[in-house]
Amino acid sequence: MTDDSPTPEEQVAEKQTERDEDEFTPRRELRQQINEAIDNEDPERLNQLLEPMHAADIADIIEHLVPAKRRIFIGLYGGEIDGEILSEIDESIRDEVVEQLPRDVLAEAVREMDSDDVVDLIEDMDEPEREEILAALDAGDRAAVQQSLAYPEYSAGRLMQSEVVTAPEHWTAGEAIDFLRREDWLPEQFYHIVLVDPRRHPVGYVTLGRLLAAKRSTPMRELEEDSFRTISAYADEGDVAYAFNQYHLISAPVVDADDRLVGVITIDDAMAVLDEEHEEDILRLAGVGDESSLTDTVPQTVRQRVPWLATNILTALAAASVIGLFEGSIAQLVALAVLMPIVASMGGNAGTQTLTVAVRGLATKDLTVDNSMRVIRREALVGLLNGTIFGLAVGAVTYFWFGNFALGAVIGFAMIINLFVAALAGILVPLALDKLGADPALASPTFVTTVTDVVGFFAFLGLATVVLL
Amino acid sequence: MTDDSPTPEEQVAEKQTERDEDEFTPRRELRQQINEAIDNEDPERLNQLLEPMHAADIADIIEHLVPAKRRIFIGLYGGEIDGEILSEIDESIRDEVVEQLPRDVLAEAVREMDSDDVVDLIEDMDEPEREEILAALDAGDRAAVQQSLAYPEYSAGRLMQSEVVTAPEHWTAGEAIDFLRREDWLPEQFYHIVLVDPRRHPVGYVTLGRLLAAKRSTPMRELEEDSFRTISAYADEGDVAYAFNQYHLISAPVVDADDRLVGVITIDDAMAVLDEEHEEDILRLAGVGDESSLTDTVPQTVRQRVPWLATNILTALAAASVIGLFEGSIAQLVALAVLMPIVASMGGNAGTQTLTVAVRGLATKDLTVDNSMRVIRREALVGLLNGTIFGLAVGAVTYFWFGNFALGAVIGFAMIINLFVAALAGILVPLALDKLGADPALASPTFVTTVTDVVGFFAFLGLATVVLL
Repeated sequence: MTDDSPTPEEQVAEKQTERDEDEFTPRRELRQQINEAIDNEDPERLNQLLEPMHAADIADIIEHLVPAKRRIFIGLYGGEIDGEILSEIDESIRDEVVEQLPRDVLAEAVREMDSDDVVDLIEDMDEPEREEILAALDAGDRAAVQQSLAYPEYSAGRLMQSEVVTAPEHWTAGEAIDFLRREDWLPEQFYHIVLVDPRRHPVGYVTLGRLLAAKRSTPMRELEEDSFRTISAYADEGDVAYAFNQYHLISAPVVDADDRLVGVITIDDAMAVLDEEHEEDILRLAGVGDESSLTDTVPQTVRQRVPWLATNILTALAAASVIGLFEGSIAQLVALAVLMPIVASMGGNAGTQTLTVAVRGLATKDLTVDNSMRVIRREALVGLLNGTIFGLAVGAVTYFWFGNFALGAVIGFAMIINLFVAALAGILVPLALDKLGADPALASPTFVTTVTDVVGFFAFLGLATVVLL
Repeated sequence: MTDDSPTPEEQVAEKQTERDEDEFTPRRELRQQINEAIDNEDPERLNQLLEPMHAADIADIIEHLVPAKRRIFIGLYGGEIDGEILSEIDESIRDEVVEQLPRDVLAEAVREMDSDDVVDLIEDMDEPEREEILAALDAGDRAAVQQSLAYPEYSAGRLMQSEVVTAPEHWTAGEAIDFLRREDWLPEQFYHIVLVDPRRHPVGYVTLGRLLAAKRSTPMRELEEDSFRTISAYADEGDVAYAFNQYHLISAPVVDADDRLVGVITIDDAMAVLDEEHEEDILRLAGVGDESSLTDTVPQTVRQRVPWLATNILTALAAASVIGLFEGSIAQLVALAVLMPIVASMGGNAGTQTLTVAVRGLATKDLTVDNSMRVIRREALVGLLNGTIFGLAVGAVTYFWFGNFALGAVIGFAMIINLFVAALAGILVPLALDKLGADPALASPTFVTTVTDVVGFFAFLGLATVVLL
C-alpha cells in the first residue's frame, strides 16, 4: 500500500457515503444522460451510452422506464436488443417488449439464447407467439425447447439447458482433453464433464480443473467429484435451488424418468430461483401478489392487493362482531374500548413473529417432522413468558392510568392468554397448512391474525364482563 | 421411455405425495436410526449410518439435536468431524460444538478448511480461542486468514479465499495448460484463471472450458471473458451477492485498495450470502432478531423477541391514548368501539403491503432515486382506490348492521383517509430510513403501524364526534 492511499477505515467511510451510488448500479448521471437521449430521440447517443453496459444493466434500464418512454426506447434501440438483454428483462414487462420488437430482431435474439432461456421466455406465451418464436429456432434447438416444455412448470426440466458436455465413462483424461480440443461445438460456459454409460445414464462428473491437472493416462472415473448427484427432471425448482445451496453444487446433470441424461442445470439459474422463491415468500407473507413488481401499473397493483385486503376485512368483521357481543360491558366501562386494541395488537405481533420463523423454517427445511414437537414446545413457552412479561407491564400501566387494580389484572391475564394462543397459532397453522400441501406463506398470516384478534377481544372483554361488571 | 414407466403426470402426483420426504433431506427412518444409535451410545452404528452422508446433511443432523443429545453425539462421533462438516454447521451452535471437540480433532479440521471458511469460523470468537485455532494453521494459511480478518466485517475481504490460480497476462493457452499440469498445488474447486500484470493487477480471466478448447498458441488475452469484473475487498457482502446474481458470475477476483489481487470469491459463497440477506430481511420485517434460529433456546428466543414487542406496546399505547381522547363519544355511541378496529387493522394491512414492496425494492436495487417519485405516485393512487373500494364496502356493511347511514358514511370516509395515509407511510418511511442509512426492514413496520393505528382511530372517532354527536 503506498503512502497516499486511503487507510481501510477511510475506505469504509468513503463506501458508506457512497452507499446510494455503489459500484454495481449505473450511476445517476449516466441514467440521466440515457433519459435525455431518449427524450431527444437520439439513437447514436443512446448506443454510445449503452455500448459499454452489461446486458443485465440495460435490462434494468428498460424496466425502469415508464411504458410510453419504453416504447420510444425500443423504437430507437430495438435493433440492438439481443438474446442476452432479452433474457435479463423481468417477466412482468417482457411480453410488452417482445411485442414491440421488429420480428427479425426477435428471431435473431432468440437464436442466440440458450435453450433454458428460450423456455423461460416462451413458457407463459400464447400459442401463436410461441409458435412464431419456435419457428425462428433451428431444428435441434427447437427440439430441445420442446422437450423442456414437456416437463411441468417450475420443474427442473424447465430450468435445465440441453447443451451438456459428456464423455464415455471408460475414457482417460487424455481422451477427454483431446475430445474437447477437437470439438468445435461447446457451450459458452461449462465447468464439468458428465460421464455417461452406454445407455446415457450419468455415472459421475469431473471438474475441468481436475481434468487439466491429471496425467493423460488417468481414467476419468478416478477423477470424479464426491459431490456428484443427479436431479430428476420432475423435481420442483425450489428443491433444486435448495440442493445447490446445501451441497455447494456448481452444475448438476438432469435425468428423465429412466435416469437418462437430458440436460444440465448450472448454479446461476439455481441462484435466480432461490432469489425468486425468497421474493415470493416475503411478498406472500405481506399479502402482496407474489408476482408484483415495481413496474406494475396502478390497476395491476390494485388487482394484486385487493384479495388480501378483502380476506382481512372478513377477519376485521369477525373481530368486530366479537366486540359487538360485549357492547353492554363497554357502555358500562368505556376504558375497555380504550384498552382492547392493545391486547389484540400485541397478540398479532407475537403471532407474526412465530409464524415468520415457522414459514422460514419450512422453506429452508430446518423445520421438519422430527423437531416440530420441540419447536412447538419452545414457542408455547416463549408465548407464556412474553405474555407474562407484557401482561405485567400493561397491567401496571393500566393500574396507574385508570387507577383500577382489577382492570389491570384483567388486561394482564388477557395478555397472557392471547400471547400464548398467538404462539400456538403461529406455529401450528403453518405446520398444518404445509401438511395439507398449501403454501404456509400465503395463508398463515390471515389465519393467525384472525385467531389473535378474536381471542384477544374475547379474552379481555369476556374476563372484564365476568370479573368487573 | 419404456411402457411401464410412469407418465409425467403420474410422476408429478407421486412427487406431491412425497413432498415431506423429498430426495434432498435425509429420510425419516434414517434420522430415527441415527437417534437410536445416539441413545444406545453406539459409535460403530453411528459411523456406519453417517458414512455415506454429505457433510452438509451431517451438519443439519447435529443442528437438529437437543443440546444434551448433541453432547453425546460429539462424544461418539467427534473424532470424525472434519473441516467440511465444521464449516457447514450453523453459526448459532458452532461455538458450542467447537468447545466440545477434542483439541487435536479441531486443529486437524481447521487445517483442512479453505481460508474463507476458517475466517467464517473464527471471526466471532474471543481472542484466546481465535489464537488457538490460528496456531493450528501453517504459516501461509495463517497469514491468509489474518489478511482477511484485517478487512471489515461483512466485506468482500472476509468472504474471499486467498487461493487463486493466476497466470501472467502475456502467456499463451499452451503455457497456461502446461503450468496447470505441472503445478502440484491447486485449489479443490476453480473455474477460471485470473490474468495479472507484473504488479499483480488482475486484467481479465479465462474459463477453463475456453482454455481447453483453444489452440496452444492462442494468447490468453484473446480468450478473456466479457463478464470480467473485479470486486473491492471493502465492498459490502450484500453488494457482492447482488453482483453475482445480476451478472451471472461464477467467480470474481478481489482486489485491495491498490487494485492488487488479494483473493477470489466463488458463487457458492455469494449464494450463501444472498440466502442470509433474504433471511435477515424477512425476519427483520417480522420483528424477530435477525440471527434467530430454530435451534435457539427459550431464553434466547425471548430475548430476541422482547425488543420488538416492547416497541409495539408503545405503538399500542399511543393508539390507546388516541381512543382515550374520545371516551365521551364512545360512551354515547358504543358502535364506535365495535367498528374502530376495522379501520385501524385495514390501514395496517395496506401499509404492510406497501412497505414490503418498498423494502424489497430497496434490497434488490429496483427502487432508486430515479423511479421513487413514480412509485410514490403509484402507491398514493393505489391507496386512494383501495380506500374507496373498502370504504364503500365497510360503509355498506355498517349501514346494514347498525341501520345508521351517517355512521356508514363516517367509517367509509375514515377508511379512505387511513388507506391513503397507509400507502404514503408505507413508501415514504422505508425511503426515508434508507436515505438516513438505517435498515428499512428493521424499523419500517413499527413506524408504519403506529401511523396507521393513530390515524385510523383519530380519523374515525374524530369524524364521528364532529358529524354524529
